[in-house]
Amino acid sequence: MERITVTLGERSYPITIAAGLFNDPASFLPLKGGDHVMVVTNETLAPLYLHSIHTVLERAGVIVDQVILPDGEQYKSLAVLDQVFTALLKKPHGRDTTLIALGGGVIGDMTGFAAASYQRGVRFIQVPTTLLSQVDSSVGGKTAVNHPLGKNMIGAFYQPASVVIDLDCLKTLPPRELSSGLAEVIKYGIILDGAFFTWLEDHLDELLALDPDALSYCLRRCCELKAAVVAADEFENGQRALLNLGHTYGHAIETHMGYGNWLHGEAVSAGIMMAAHTARRLGQLGMDDIRRVQVLLARAGLPVTGPKEMAPADYLPHMMRDKKVVSGQLRLVLPRSIGQAEVRTGVANDIVLASIADCQA
Amino acid sequence: MERITVTLGERSYPITIAAGLFNDPASFLPLKGGDHVMVVTNETLAPLYLHSIHTVLERAGVIVDQVILPDGEQYKSLAVLDQVFTALLKKPHGRDTTLIALGGGVIGDMTGFAAASYQRGVRFIQVPTTLLSQVDSSVGGKTAVNHPLGKNMIGAFYQPASVVIDLDCLKTLPPRELSSGLAEVIKYGIILDGAFFTWLEDHLDELLALDPDALSYCLRRCCELKAAVVAADEFENGQRALLNLGHTYGHAIETHMGYGNWLHGEAVSAGIMMAAHTARRLGQLGMDDIRRVQVLLARAGLPVTGPKEMAPADYLPHMMRDKKVVSGQLRLVLPRSIGQAEVRTGVANDIVLASIADCQA
Repeated sequence: MERITVTLGERSYPITIAAGLFNDPASFLPLKGGDHVMVVTNETLAPLYLHSIHTVLERAGVIVDQVILPDGEQYKSLAVLDQVFTALLKKPHGRDTTLIALGGGVIGDMTGFAAASYQRGVRFIQVPTTLLSQVDSSVGGKTAVNHPLGKNMIGAFYQPASVVIDLDCLKTLPPRELSSGLAEVIKYGIILDGAFFTWLEDHLDELLALDPDALSYCLRRCCELKAAVVAADEFENGQRALLNLGHTYGHAIETHMGYGNWLHGEAVSAGIMMAAHTARRLGQLGMDDIRRVQVLLARAGLPVTGPKEMAPADYLPHMMRDKKVVSGQLRLVLPRSIGQAEVRTGVANDIVLASIADCQA
Repeated sequence: MERITVTLGERSYPITIAAGLFNDPASFLPLKGGDHVMVVTNETLAPLYLHSIHTVLERAGVIVDQVILPDGEQYKSLAVLDQVFTALLKKPHGRDTTLIALGGGVIGDMTGFAAASYQRGVRFIQVPTTLLSQVDSSVGGKTAVNHPLGKNMIGAFYQPASVVIDLDCLKTLPPRELSSGLAEVIKYGIILDGAFFTWLEDHLDELLALDPDALSYCLRRCCELKAAVVAADEFENGQRALLNLGHTYGHAIETHMGYGNWLHGEAVSAGIMMAAHTARRLGQLGMDDIRRVQVLLARAGLPVTGPKEMAPADYLPHMMRDKKVVSGQLRLVLPRSIGQAEVRTGVANDIVLASIADCQA
C-alpha cells in the first residue's frame, strides 16, 4: 500500500493507493460508526462497486445513502448538481454529513463542488475509479461543473478529507478511458519530470496491460508530483498553472465538439501537441522532443491531431474564456524541454493559429 | 462618513457608511482604472441607481458591464444564478473581474455566490440597497441561493472586498422592506446589546421617519456588532450561530409559504417571537422581556404571529433541514434576556410545537 500526504496545514489529507481497498472499512477514514454519508456515483459504476462499498461501510456502523447520476461529461452541469442537493435535502443530510465521490473526474469534480456548496461546505472523500481521476482530478481540490460556454467555469477550490485509490477499478475501465488517463500521466513527465517521461517510454506497454507493479509506481509518482505542486500553490497563483499543459487548447475542443464527444484526455493529448508546436514556433522546443511526445501519446492510443471538424479559428473564442486569461491576454503553458514547462503571455494569435494548424488531421 | 473594518487577516475589508457614496468613484475601492466589472442588480433597482454608478465608474476608467435579474426572493435560485455566469462568459470576463452586488439580500447573496464560484473565485463588492442587507447580509461573507426544499442551502463562505452603504438608498425603499430590515436590527439588540435595544425603543420613530442621524448610528452599531461576531467566528463554529435568532422558525415560514410571500424580516420577526416563547417555556425568559420584544417588533410594523395558513406541525420538517442541525438534533438560538442569547440543543419537540402555537394568529 502506498500512502502520500497532500500537505496543506490543517487541511492536509492522505492519498491511499492499493488493490482491494473497497473491501476494508479502514480505507474510508476519517469515517466512523454513526456518521451519515451520501455516495454519489453514476449508472455505469453503481452496479460494479456500490454494493461492496455500501456493505463495508454499513458493517462499520455508517449510515449510507446514495444518489446515482447519468454517466458522461455532458451531465457535469448545474442542473445535475441540483439532483445531488435534492437527494441530500430529502433525507435530510445535515452539515455533519460526508459525501463520497465514487467515479471518474465528472463525479469527483461535481461531488466536490456539491460538498463545497451544500450548506456552505460539508466533508467529502474522493474515490476515483478511472486512471484520469486517480492521477489528476481527485487530488488537489479543484472542483467544478461545466457551463455551455466553457468547461469547469463554475466551481471552488475545496479539498477532500482523503483520496482512496483502489487499483482493482482499472480492470473494468474501457481501453479508451485508460488511454485518456495516460494523457495526464504523460503530461506530468513533460512538465515536471524528464526521468519519469523516460520511464513511461520504457513501461508504457506494461501500463496498457495493467501490470500491477507498473501501475502502482505510475500512480504513486503522479500523485507525488501533483501533491507537491498543490502544496506549493493551492490556489493556482503560480506554478500550479503548469498542470494545465494542453488544457487551454483541449478545453476548446471539448467545448466546441460538445461535452463527452472527445474524452478529456483525448482533447488534452491533441492540446499538448498544439502547445508543443507553439513552443517550437517560439524557438524554445526542438523537433526531437516533439517527436518523442508525439510517439508516446500515439502509443498510448491518443489522438495527436485536433478534430477535423474544427478550423484553427474555431479555437480562439473558447481559449479566450480560459481561466488563465488575465486582462484579456492568453496565458499559455508551454514546454521548454521534456521535464520542464513555463507559463507564457503575449504569444501572438497567428503563432497560436499556426500551431493548431500544425496539428490538423 | 463611518468606516468599520471586518478583521479577517488578509481577507479584512472595510464597510463604508454615508449618504451620497454612489456619486464618488473612491467609494468603490479597491477598483481602479482598467478594471473590468460586472454590476449585478435587479429590474427594480436598475432604473434607480445603475446609471449613476455606471457613469461614476466609467469616468474612473473602469470597464462596466451589467446583468439585470428579476426582483424577488423566488429568483434566488441556481437557475437565475446561471444567468449571471452566462452574462460573464459571453463577454467574456476573466478571473481578474470584479462583481458588484447592487441590491438587497437576494442580489447580495446570489452575487456573492456567483463570485465565489465563477472560475473558482473572483472579487466582489457589496452595495446593499435595503436596510436588511445593509445591517445583515452584506457583511460577513455568507453567500447562497435557495433550494425548493430549503433556504440558503447552496452557497459558500466568501468575503467581499468591501461593503458600500449609501444611506440615500433607503429613501426609495418601500415601507414594508424598511420594516423587514428592522427585524434584523432589533435582533442585534436582543442577542448582543441590551443598551442598543433600549436605544431602539427610544428612537424607533426616528428610524421609521428615516432621520439621517438615527439611521447612521443604527447602521454603524449593527455593522460593528456583526463585524465583531464574524471576526471571532467566520465559519459559524460557535457564537456566529446567535445571529440566527428567529431564523430556524423563520426559514420554515419562508420555505412553506413560498419564497417571496413573506419577506425575510417578517418571517424572522414571527420566528423571534417563537424563540422567545420557547425560551419562556424552558424557564429562561420572563414575560416582561417577551412583551418588550413583541411591542418593539409590532411598532416596527412587523408580524408577531406566524402565518394563519401554517399549523405548528408544518414547521418541523423544514426546521429539521436547518443548517444548525447536528446528528439529527435541532439546535435553537434562544434569548436568555434582552441582550443575551445562547444555542440550545435537546429541546423537546412538544415545547417547540407549543411555542409556535403561542404565536398563532
